Amino acid sequence: MYTVFEAIQAVLQQVPVPQKEQVSLLQALHRVLVEDVFVPEESPAFPKALMDGFAVSVTTGLVHAGQLSEDSEPLRLRVVETIVAGQVPHREPNQNEAVRIMTGAPVPPNCGCVVPVEHVEFHEQDPEWVVIHRNQLVLGANILATGAIAHVGDPLMKAGTQLQPSHVGALAEFGISSVSVSKRPRVAVLATGNELVHFSRQPGAGCIRNSNQPMLAAQIQTANAIPQLLGIAKDSAESLKAGISAGLRADVLLLTGGVSAGILDLVPQQLEMAGVTQIFHGVLMKPGKPLWFGIRKDRGHVCLVFGLPGNPVSSLACFELFVRPALRRLSGLPGESVFHATLTEPFQVWGHRPVYQPVVLSQKCGTMLARPVPWSNSSDLKATVNANGMALLEPEHGPYGAGECVTVWPWN
Amino acid sequence: MYTVFEAIQAVLQQVPVPQKEQVSLLQALHRVLVEDVFVPEESPAFPKALMDGFAVSVTTGLVHAGQLSEDSEPLRLRVVETIVAGQVPHREPNQNEAVRIMTGAPVPPNCGCVVPVEHVEFHEQDPEWVVIHRNQLVLGANILATGAIAHVGDPLMKAGTQLQPSHVGALAEFGISSVSVSKRPRVAVLATGNELVHFSRQPGAGCIRNSNQPMLAAQIQTANAIPQLLGIAKDSAESLKAGISAGLRADVLLLTGGVSAGILDLVPQQLEMAGVTQIFHGVLMKPGKPLWFGIRKDRGHVCLVFGLPGNPVSSLACFELFVRPALRRLSGLPGESVFHATLTEPFQVWGHRPVYQPVVLSQKCGTMLARPVPWSNSSDLKATVNANGMALLEPEHGPYGAGECVTVWPWN
Repeated sequence: MYTVFEAIQAVLQQVPVPQKEQVSLLQALHRVLVEDVFVPEESPAFPKALMDGFAVSVTTGLVHAGQLSEDSEPLRLRVVETIVAGQVPHREPNQNEAVRIMTGAPVPPNCGCVVPVEHVEFHEQDPEWVVIHRNQLVLGANILATGAIAHVGDPLMKAGTQLQPSHVGALAEFGISSVSVSKRPRVAVLATGNELVHFSRQPGAGCIRNSNQPMLAAQIQTANAIPQLLGIAKDSAESLKAGISAGLRADVLLLTGGVSAGILDLVPQQLEMAGVTQIFHGVLMKPGKPLWFGIRKDRGHVCLVFGLPGNPVSSLACFELFVRPALRRLSGLPGESVFHATLTEPFQVWGHRPVYQPVVLSQKCGTMLARPVPWSNSSDLKATVNANGMALLEPEHGPYGAGECVTVWPWN
Repeated sequence: MYTVFEAIQAVLQQVPVPQKEQVSLLQALHRVLVEDVFVPEESPAFPKALMDGFAVSVTTGLVHAGQLSEDSEPLRLRVVETIVAGQVPHREPNQNEAVRIMTGAPVPPNCGCVVPVEHVEFHEQDPEWVVIHRNQLVLGANILATGAIAHVGDPLMKAGTQLQPSHVGALAEFGISSVSVSKRPRVAVLATGNELVHFSRQPGAGCIRNSNQPMLAAQIQTANAIPQLLGIAKDSAESLKAGISAGLRADVLLLTGGVSAGILDLVPQQLEMAGVTQIFHGVLMKPGKPLWFGIRKDRGHVCLVFGLPGNPVSSLACFELFVRPALRRLSGLPGESVFHATLTEPFQVWGHRPVYQPVVLSQKCGTMLARPVPWSNSSDLKATVNANGMALLEPEHGPYGAGECVTVWPWN
């Protein structure tokens, strides 16, 4: 039987390359670039004032940064124009002139610095004149030169970048109003089991509500994929066949239940009859042992098929361990993202299977902490409402002590 | 001038209590409960088999866990019924009988344990009989008793819980198909500045694209709020007045630009004319110093108004520091969420203002690390595409060394 890590690798090996589509920048949040993006133009496109102040010509006698001017006499300059952001300068000041300029406005081409307004003295009678001490005249001060931020052709973002708000801002700044991203995977969910009723119904005797389907729909959404809920199939060949046939049109099909060794566990057999090739059945873990995984290729369309155990905590854990990495890779991201945390209390693993234990993850002074949450068994979804992740705890390790470092999977 | 922490508190003090609405469970992901939720029914509703196996009557001579049976002779029991999940038992086995049962199926009322199928011997000639060793007959084994997971009235989730997939699953399990949650805040965004053009356009001389609006729209979405983009206002009283008047109908109005001391910085004046009361103007920080914050109450409707600086990195930082906590509290969550990380390299703060420095946050063996990203100034959005958070670095501290712990704000 595969270990969890072998099973994850076996899943990732089957993931096809992402499909791509062009989306508008306003729809691009959290999408993943499939192509490198390069800077299309000089930034800034013009020399720009970084402060409100006065732009002064290079002919006025500027000094280099760190230098002191030899002449200590203050300069008296005539203000010949005012430029605000969005305007263009109409003239270049000569050595006895200055241009009043606002932050973000274009600096006249012959100017060498902007002296901030707070370092300038005004003539009380005549606002058309300003007095500036020569030591303020530092070449390049408070001007952002053309291309100082970026040049045409500079790399801006790499393929595989998942777009966060700052990426959206930078793309907008460069006028890149649509981007080539991976398609969001469509994930069909088919619950199976005669005992299941829709979660809004009162179950009859011996029946339970289908909690896996809304939970998986939420998990799929957090993976930036699109859930397609196919309802509940009965434990019969006909019912399963119809549901599986509909589900195989998606990029990923998740079934819940019907994968153990019970007399009504018909899912593996029906999947194989539908042309799905089994990659593995069963993983050395608790919960989640009966997990089934296979793939179906049909005229270029690939569907990854997961038979998740029916117990809610098993289904939750198997999604996080196996389905989420598959969806990440299907979206052009690295498959796995491994985290570690420090156990806050001792833990004893019972049995011979590695345990994926619900934990509360928190952060204290930069260190991730994991506190195991008591849970009775894999149908105890109530216990997991207090958890926000799970930790891998291995039987060969022996008893765990508080302070030990363990591998964790955050759920959010 | 307020410090950042004083300013955050001043913002949070103005946030009104969340408004509530009822939403379907399938729409409830990431929404925040405004009422405590209690368990509405016993869980499980019937005694449930935890394994595939054979249910045996309490009259058959069960032992308590840890006890050994006095009688070593194996029992021979007649299989009188098979129960699969979704069925109800039709009879109670007597002391010489057993019931074949599947995981999740209801256990007959008089049964005291389920013996797993792998611990049972079958009679080769007669599948109607099973042989069970007495030490397998442990009272309560592999049965989940009625109410063992939860009783009616037990607390299930507290008000203030942000619903993750496991919460959705647990609510579905208990048939809670809609929940009372806080309304998603509506956040209007009005960019201001004569120099701005829509991000899909080629800017004319001296003009730049409006990158703040799509970036803020993305930030608003990551805060589970609803962006309302109001376009670009000119630096004129008429244009600002129209935009502000439309924006004040939202729960939060964000303006960008026009809050410095330049001659066209008309935003504070126009906001006050529109009935917005200023709470503060200016915060001791870099970038973001010109931030303006006020509130307008109009016949029960409250609008929080932020005048964000126009430079993209300032706008980004001010959103994360001030707007996000306000949106969290407006959604019923705690306002602030403080994290820490370890600096990977030395850092020197220039000037007298605390710096909110773009950093790359990563995790190594359970420890959060922060690596400062070089950036030239607050219009350098290109530098921030490599960052995923920011760190607070204070001038009074003196030079920072690698390994020091700093306060950080993750951007995702």
